[in-house]
Amino acid sequence: MLNVRNRLQAWQERIESVLDEILPPASTHPAKLHEALRYSVLDGGKRMRPLLVYATGEALGIAPEHLDVQAAAVELIHVYSLVHDDLPAMDDDDLRRGKPTCHKAFDEPTAILVGDALQALAFQILAAHPRMTASPAQRLRMIEQLGQAAGSRGMVGGQALDLAAVGQQLTEIELENMHIHKTGALIRASVLLAAYSVDAIDVERLQQLDHFAKCIGLAFQVQDDILDVESDTQTLGKTRGADAAAGKPTYSSIIGLSASKMKLQDLYDEALNALVSLGDSADSLRCCAEFTVKRIR
Amino acid sequence: MLNVRNRLQAWQERIESVLDEILPPASTHPAKLHEALRYSVLDGGKRMRPLLVYATGEALGIAPEHLDVQAAAVELIHVYSLVHDDLPAMDDDDLRRGKPTCHKAFDEPTAILVGDALQALAFQILAAHPRMTASPAQRLRMIEQLGQAAGSRGMVGGQALDLAAVGQQLTEIELENMHIHKTGALIRASVLLAAYSVDAIDVERLQQLDHFAKCIGLAFQVQDDILDVESDTQTLGKTRGADAAAGKPTYSSIIGLSASKMKLQDLYDEALNALVSLGDSADSLRCCAEFTVKRIR
Repeated sequence: MLNVRNRLQAWQERIESVLDEILPPASTHPAKLHEALRYSVLDGGKRMRPLLVYATGEALGIAPEHLDVQAAAVELIHVYSLVHDDLPAMDDDDLRRGKPTCHKAFDEPTAILVGDALQALAFQILAAHPRMTASPAQRLRMIEQLGQAAGSRGMVGGQALDLAAVGQQLTEIELENMHIHKTGALIRASVLLAAYSVDAIDVERLQQLDHFAKCIGLAFQVQDDILDVESDTQTLGKTRGADAAAGKPTYSSIIGLSASKMKLQDLYDEALNALVSLGDSADSLRCCAEFTVKRIR
Repeated sequence: MLNVRNRLQAWQERIESVLDEILPPASTHPAKLHEALRYSVLDGGKRMRPLLVYATGEALGIAPEHLDVQAAAVELIHVYSLVHDDLPAMDDDDLRRGKPTCHKAFDEPTAILVGDALQALAFQILAAHPRMTASPAQRLRMIEQLGQAAGSRGMVGGQALDLAAVGQQLTEIELENMHIHKTGALIRASVLLAAYSVDAIDVERLQQLDHFAKCIGLAFQVQDDILDVESDTQTLGKTRGADAAAGKPTYSSIIGLSASKMKLQDLYDEALNALVSLGDSADSLRCCAEFTVKRIR
């Protein structure tokens, strides 16, 4: 597993340099906006979604250099969603990835614009970045998938459900539905964008990868809720207990901490099961799954 | 000119029904978000950008049914920008298109999410809507153009400049630079998205249309500033004098009202000049230009 971990770490460094290259220089006019764009995107986060893009590519025999733009696009959408979620009108968070949130480090209008600009950039690079090697038809499929995953029937819809859930008693199914949209859609898109880079992927393989993505997407959220109870602010890099304090339903509040841990294990097992037929080529994906359920922040 | 006006009115009705079809039904889960999406987009506005798409198409011999998705995409980006611009942290406007702004009719988090979802939808439909007839390569060119026009070096950059300009003394050149980004980029994109629907457009024709778009984009803003002084809130459908009251630099405050009117006439003449070689086929574009400079709201 040591080699696999080294590979994941190399991909983390890789996506950092890809993002650095894709974002306009901080001196671009207007400078404050571009500084804030770079502040929000660079030098932070687990980069889970880009890792999933590269790891899925490895399982399907696609080299990282053919996946840089897809990895950057999903991360840009993810970061935009964090910047907007942290706004005072939304979750009102001061801390993200161990740093002041964008609207704290800059200001609220800038944070709104940073999110807006990152979303536009994500689609723009899939359409036209010179690093992009996929065919026009493949790119269009990726743009459609990312648009759907990010939009009102995907991530943004999940965020709306999340806001509506504050102070409400949700059932476990309602909670799951919210997470499937809010975080699950983009995690699935990460795997699918890599899969769509293959000339002709067979339907069964696509379904296995998609099922894997669904399981770890949900597992990620269950672990988030467990950490919100069991970890501390410094380790998390964001305010511990913030969800519970904001009256948001969590797995631990609905089914309890120990049932949450069992659910996490079940999702992990199911995710690994989905990869069986891929053999050794899926070791990086397995490692992503392990990180998801065993991470401490 | 009567026939041309009827054509523009028919296109206004056409885009209304296209948008109605493209937006998810109001009953889509989560319902509040989808109601707010439809509230913000439908039944309002001059639809200037879609009209420019159809009118450019007419000048180039492309029928409206091949331009519906392009027209809808630019309008979705435009509406998202209005919804975000109206937010309390930005321009804090209560009235838009004669109705309460999205965050007034719904709430602030919903308005943020509505803007985010509209942007995703704009790119998604260019990639994959069944009404779209352009080739994959053409679509990618449109997505790239729209992403650039909407992003940090286009509309969002212009909005950042606009916010930074509050209470500042700008030169006329700085004011023009702000408007070229804030409204000009998307108006140019409207014309270019129609032009990219032609199999092989010659460079000179493209430059003429682009120059026309630049001129009316700026003329639109000059007329906006004139109306902000000379019109009234009821006619405008938004708060009259709001820009001046917010300490925003305007053409009338920088060069004076009478010089603003001369500048408007100059831009109008220049716009019409750019269309000369297109003959009668550009009559709808001329009518769009006329509306831009003679509109009363």
